[in-house]
This record gives sequence, C-alpha cells and structure tokens, in this order.
Amino acid sequence: MDEKDTDRLEAFSDGVFAVAITLLILDIKILPLDPSGKLPKDPQLWSMLLGQWPALLAFVTSFSTIGVMWLNHHRLFKHIERTDTGLLLLNLLLLLLIVFVPVPTSLAAEYLAHPDQHVAALVYSGTFLLLACCFIVLWRYATYHNRLIGKDTDQRAVTAISRQYLFGPLFYLITFGLAWINVPACIILNFVLALFFAFPGHPLRHIATATEKCLNFFSKDDQSREATKNDKFD
Amino acid sequence: MDEKDTDRLEAFSDGVFAVAITLLILDIKILPLDPSGKLPKDPQLWSMLLGQWPALLAFVTSFSTIGVMWLNHHRLFKHIERTDTGLLLLNLLLLLLIVFVPVPTSLAAEYLAHPDQHVAALVYSGTFLLLACCFIVLWRYATYHNRLIGKDTDQRAVTAISRQYLFGPLFYLITFGLAWINVPACIILNFVLALFFAFPGHPLRHIATATEKCLNFFSKDDQSREATKNDKFD
Amino acid sequence: MDEKDTDRLEAFSDGVFAVAITLLILDIKILPLDPSGKLPKDPQLWSMLLGQWPALLAFVTSFSTIGVMWLNHHRLFKHIERTDTGLLLLNLLLLLLIVFVPVPTSLAAEYLAHPDQHVAALVYSGTFLLLACCFIVLWRYATYHNRLIGKDTDQRAVTAISRQYLFGPLFYLITFGLAWINVPACIILNFVLALFFAFPGHPLRHIATATEKCLNFFSKDDQSREATKNDKFD
Amino acid sequence: MDEKDTDRLEAFSDGVFAVAITLLILDIKILPLDPSGKLPKDPQLWSMLLGQWPALLAFVTSFSTIGVMWLNHHRLFKHIERTDTGLLLLNLLLLLLIVFVPVPTSLAAEYLAHPDQHVAALVYSGTFLLLACCFIVLWRYATYHNRLIGKDTDQRAVTAISRQYLFGPLFYLITFGLAWINVPACIILNFVLALFFAFPGHPLRHIATATEKCLNFFSKDDQSREATKNDKFD
Repeated sequence: MDEKDTDRLEAFSDGVFAVAITLLILDIKILPLDPSGKLPKDPQLWSMLLGQWPALLAFVTSFSTIGVMWLNHHRLFKHIERTDTGLLLLNLLLLLLIVFVPVPTSLAAEYLAHPDQHVAALVYSGTFLLLACCFIVLWRYATYHNRLIGKDTDQRAVTAISRQYLFGPLFYLITFGLAWINVPACIILNFVLALFFAFPGHPLRHIATATEKCLNFFSKDDQSREATKNDKFD
Repeated sequence: MDEKDTDRLEAFSDGVFAVAITLLILDIKILPLDPSGKLPKDPQLWSMLLGQWPALLAFVTSFSTIGVMWLNHHRLFKHIERTDTGLLLLNLLLLLLIVFVPVPTSLAAEYLAHPDQHVAALVYSGTFLLLACCFIVLWRYATYHNRLIGKDTDQRAVTAISRQYLFGPLFYLITFGLAWINVPACIILNFVLALFFAFPGHPLRHIATATEKCLNFFSKDDQSREATKNDKFD
Repeated sequence: MDEKDTDRLEAFSDGVFAVAITLLILDIKILPLDPSGKLPKDPQLWSMLLGQWPALLAFVTSFSTIGVMWLNHHRLFKHIERTDTGLLLLNLLLLLLIVFVPVPTSLAAEYLAHPDQHVAALVYSGTFLLLACCFIVLWRYATYHNRLIGKDTDQRAVTAISRQYLFGPLFYLITFGLAWINVPACIILNFVLALFFAFPGHPLRHIATATEKCLNFFSKDDQSREATKNDKFD
Repeated sequence: MDEKDTDRLEAFSDGVFAVAITLLILDIKILPLDPSGKLPKDPQLWSMLLGQWPALLAFVTSFSTIGVMWLNHHRLFKHIERTDTGLLLLNLLLLLLIVFVPVPTSLAAEYLAHPDQHVAALVYSGTFLLLACCFIVLWRYATYHNRLIGKDTDQRAVTAISRQYLFGPLFYLITFGLAWINVPACIILNFVLALFFAFPGHPLRHIATATEKCLNFFSKDDQSREATKNDKFD
C-alpha cells in the first residue's frame, strides 16, 4: 500500500493530461493541396481556414474540458493525502477516459457541419458524462469516512466539492439529450459547462459569484481577497 | 556515479510512461469517409464504431498494462534510494520496451478479428513477457546486497516484491502459450494480469485479499486502515 | 480557490510546453519515395533535404518562440506565488494558443517558398501577436494590486517585466505588417523577436546590454556577475 | 536574470527528452495490408516483421543515444546550480537538436538496407556530432570561472566531465567518417558510443572500469561501493 505520497501520482497524471490535451491539435489539418495537386492561392486558403470552424470549435471545447478537468483533478488532490490501490486504479480509469477524448473530438469535428447526424455528438457527450461520473466515484472513494483525506481538511470544503460534482452527470445528461436535437448547441453547451466547472463552489450561487468576480476584477485588492474567502465557504 | 537522488530519474520515467500511454490512442482511427468518399450516415457510423472493438480492447489492455507497470515502477522506486549507471541503463531498457508497446498493440488490434492468425498475439504477449523479466532484473540489481536500497527499508516488503515479481514471467508465459490457441482469450488474460499486478502482496493470498478489500470498501475507516497494514506485511 | 501553490500549475504547463514544442518536428517529413515509388539516390536526397529549408526555418522559428515563451512563463511564475480561478483560466488560454502553434507553423512552412501568398504568414504572426497579448493580460491580472504576487517581490522587477511586455504586441504587429510585404523576412523577424524576449530588461537598453554580455562572455567571473546584477535593476 | 533554481529548467528538459524519445516509435509502422488490400497471413507477417530490422536498429540506437544524453544532461545539472539567459538559450539549442533526432533516425532506418547510399547516415551521425559539440559548449559556458557551478562542487569531478566530453566530437567524427564507408557499421558504432557515454569517467581507463564493474556485479556490497567511489575521482 502506498500511503502519504500522491506526488508521483500527480506528476504522472499531469503528464497524461498534458500529452492528451496537446494531441488534440493533431486533428486540425489544413490540407495544403487542392484536388489538382497545387497549393491553394490566398483567397482559397482563407475559405479553407474558415471552413475549419467545426474542427476549431471541437478543439477549443475539448481543450477547455480537459483543461478544466485537470484543474479539478488538481483541486481534489489538494485534499487527498494518501493513495491506495483502489485510488490508483480509479485514477487510471479517469486517465483512460481523458486519453480517449481525442477520438470523439475528431468525430464531433467531422459531423458538426452535418446537423442531421447525431451519433458523433452522442459519443462526444457520452464520453464527458462518463468522465463526470468517474470524478464522483474517485472523490467518493477517497473521502468515504476520510479514507485518504488529510485529518485537518476542512469538512465544509469536502462537502462543497461533493455537492458541486453531483451536478456534473446531471448537466452532461442534458448535453447528451441535446445531442439528439441540435449538434452545434450540444458542443457549445459542453464548452459552457467546462467554464462552469472551472469555478469552485455551489452551482446555484454560481452565476451570482461569477458576476461578483467580474465586478471585483478591477476593484481594490482587499475587497477581492475577501470575496475569494467568502467564495471558499459557500 | 549519481547517488541519493532518484528524483529526476522518476520524473523522466513518468514522462516517458505518460507519453507512451497516451500515444496508444493514435491507433484508434475511425475512418470518417466510406469508400465512395462520403461521410457515413448515423446507422453506418454506429456499426463502424462497434466494428472497432478489437482496437478498443487492445487499447484498454495496453493502457492498463502500461498504467499498472507505471504503478509498479513507482512502488519499486519508493524503496530504491540511490542510482548508479547500471540502474540507469536497466531503467532505459525498461522504458525502451514500454515505448515499444504501441507497435504490438497496433498489430494485436488488427489481428484480433482473425483468430486463426497467431503471430500478432505472440509478439504482443512476448513484449509483456520481456517487460516482466526486465522488472525482475532491475529489482534484483537494485536489491542485491541492498546495493541501492535505503538502510531502513523493511526487508519483508523487499522480499514480498521479489516473490510477487517471480510470478510475472510465469503468468506472461501462459498468455504467450494461449496466443497459439485463442487470440482474444490471450488479450483478455493480459488485461486480467494487469489488474492482478495492480495489487501488491503474495499472489497465493491475493484472491483472498481482494475479496477482503471489497468487503472493507464500505466498512469503517479504522478497520480498512488495519486491513491495509496487515496487507503490507504479507 | 487555490492559493499558495503554483507547483502543479507550473508542472502541467511545463508538460504542455514540452509536448507542443516536440510535436513541431512531426511537420518535417522527408518523403522517402520519389514519384516512381523508389528511394531517391544520394544526389536526389541531398537536394530533397535542401528543399526542406522552409520547413526547417519555420520549425526553428516556432521552436525558439515556444522555447522563449516557456522561459518567460517560468520568469513570471517566479514572482507569482498564488493562483486563483482567473489565473488558471488565463493560463489555459495561453496554453491553448501554444498548443495551436504547430498549425500556423505547418502553413508557414508550406507557403514560405511562395512569397506572393501572404495569408499563411499573417496567420503565423497573428498567433504570436495573440500570445504576446495573452502574456500581458495574465501578468496584469496577477500583478494588479499585487493580487497573486509575493509580498517580498521586488516592485522594480515587476515594473520592468510589465514595461518589456508592452513591446511584445508592438513588435509582433510589425511582423504582422511585414507579412503583407515579404513572407521570409516576416518569419526571420519572428525568430529575432524570440531571441529578443529571451533577454530580460528594458528594450531600449537591450542592444547595449547584449553587446556588453558578448564582451563579458570570456572576461573575468566577477565582472560578469556584476554586469548580471546591474541588468536586473534596469 | 534567473539564478539559483534550475528545477523548472530540468523539468521542462525532462519533458522534451521524454516526448522526443517516445516519438521515435512513430517511425516503426508495420503495414497491416499487403498490396492486394488484405491482411498478410502469419508467415508473411513474420517476414514483414523481420524485414523491419533497419527501423528497429535505428530506433534502438536513437533511443539509447537520447536516453544517455538525458543521463548526461542530468549529470551536468547536478553540478550546475544557477541559470542565466545564456545557459537557457544553450539548453534550448540542445533540446532543438534532441527534438530533431527523429528526422535523421527515420532517414537512417529507410537507407540502412541500401548500403551504397551514404547521405542518410551522414545526416544521422552529423546530428549526433552537433549534439556532442553542443554539450561541450553548454558545459564550458556553465563552468567557465565557476560561472553557474555550486561553490562546494568537486573541481576534480568538473574536470573529469570536461575531459570525457572532449572525446565526444572526436568519436562522433569517426562515425561520421564511417558513414562514407559502411552504413550499418556507422549506426552500430553510434549505439556503442551511447553505451560508452553512459559510464562516467576517463575514457582511457574506461574499458578497465567496465570490466571491473562486470566482475563486481555479483561481488560483495562493500567492494562495489568502493569501486564506485574510486571511479568518481578518476
């Protein structure tokens, strides 16, 4: 049993997140040759670049989602202080799904311009739905009777994370449903959800907090520090 | 001679493990065009996705195996405190085999649906057999007369690892043999072996421990902590 | 809110920078077969290699730019001691642009030999222009009323960085303009700018400092140490 | 000027080394289809795998060389304690060459089976020749008048490294010359050189030390520890 050091687990996870997030770019290929085997001229190239919007939208959405999931992984492991085989395996499962993301992203990019086709968007949203569930299982496993949590961890912070994460599968179920109705809207909602999970705290008070944050952006230092503190204990 | 810091060795190894495990996904390519050059419609896409099961099975098996080998690498280097040129070279050999894994994985994925062809499965199991041997050599090199082991290392833990690892080549020899008989069974056994090596301790008491663990999963904190401790001294 | 540790943020960013900078090489492909399906002979191979100069120039320029941007990221995070959600998101935006660099690099490599086509060079310089702006926003966000800066940070160092970074968008605007006039000159200026931002300190005193540095290179240790110190307080 | 922490420099370099060494595997592609569009049967697959020996030899040689260069990078940075802009730029140049290695490796793999063609082997050996020179320049820059070296660094260790590294360009010049005469011999000599630079210490006493090491492999712990210490002060 490996207790006390989550350092190498985090380093390895960081590595996998970093490689997976970067490999997303390999899907954006601007074909340099037109059908007659020549390089396209400037006006053609412009329209080719603009025609890549589905690939770019899918890239930005998946990048944001993986990025914010890294951020949440980071947040969880600030509370998790010990590891055991169960946690290591759950973490590997999480990483497996993260590594899988480029495949549905590529599918979604291909099918975004064909809004009558829904399978690609279903697979895309389904992957994120699974990831959201996986986060909950990992967190529940680690916090169950403080199994792997530090003794001086703020229980309110733990509960706040547990509560926020419950909304994950719920919200991704909505994007999953949206995939049957409108594919671009589904991708865009996935992007909005990524931003949503970037901010910690209770979802119902979330929009209020976000607005407050925007207002505080250029306000005085002390005030914003206080806002940050309050936010912590939501 | 580099003594006392295995930090950068571990960081570099983590990086190689992380990149190799992520590159596995590059093999899963869902061709977005059918033979007539058009995107397949939804029903076609479903059957294309389902037709990718050999690639997915090979991906999941190799991901698990590399993941659990990372985990074991991590476990060994909790005991190894010093490095020398021999260890660095043996570690490089281990990493070379890890980096090689995507090649047999790609082969296995291609040939899983052709169960009368055995070469791909032989190469696949053979790679893991070599890796299991390489782990034993590295561990024996490091522990021989406590060459690179910390002074206060628990000798029982060292012996437990040595004993468990002996089963590695043995078990992988069985998958190697199975490759001659049934290719999918060989791949699935490789997956089961990955899970097996995720749990530390004596193989004969292993199934018992696993069951105990399952029972302890939702039991009280103190009990599971004790179970963990006992497990350490097997 | 995550305060006090930027360690994992830096580790993850290092990972993304490292993968993105290495993926640049995937664009340099020396086709091993000539049109008749045979390997080219030695003289042909020479001319094929020499014909790759646009890809090599674009590779070296993008490698230098990402490398120096990593260096500046490193420099900023020596002053930034805390993180909050805003910083994490701005950092993700920065990484998204870094990950995107291989795409315009590939375009620039393709179009360098066609100096009458300007779109590729515009996209190339535009990406770096956005990156320079992103660096300013991240730095301003972190330093605004010392939001995330250490208390004992040298205010002069902070101001020096703020002042130097203002020149970033300015200089990249020049390369953006140059893209309309002369494509190779635009790429080469981008390379020169990368070197420029490798050196910290005030841009107007920069060429003087660089010369001084060259002279000090083989001069006595004490003198060069002093030159370094002065440079710090520019 | 960034002084005192080479931590992030090492982390970033580790990342680049790890990605570059892993990307080498992308060159080994076993085509799963024969010319008639079918999967090859077992006997064909065997001969196809055996026919990949040039790619495998080039892969193993480049992997070993990058791996041992990482090892030497690691060795140098145990002595280097401070960084400045010059060191950061020289390190970037070193990493650029490391990242470039997959290109000549791919070329060498393609041309190994055509021993009358020498350009590929020249480019291959030339890259390593440049890398060996780059290592010397970086080391000389860091050690010149103890510019970036720790105060309590053993001067004999510094001198030993300086002396060993001088043999680098010399030996790689020999492989460069060999590329004109015999291509496979050139690749194999590169592999031997990688092993050679894995062992620290004076080259002339090297073969003796290596033999001694082999003999000590299964000898008593104390003796081998002493042998290691002596080796340090060569």
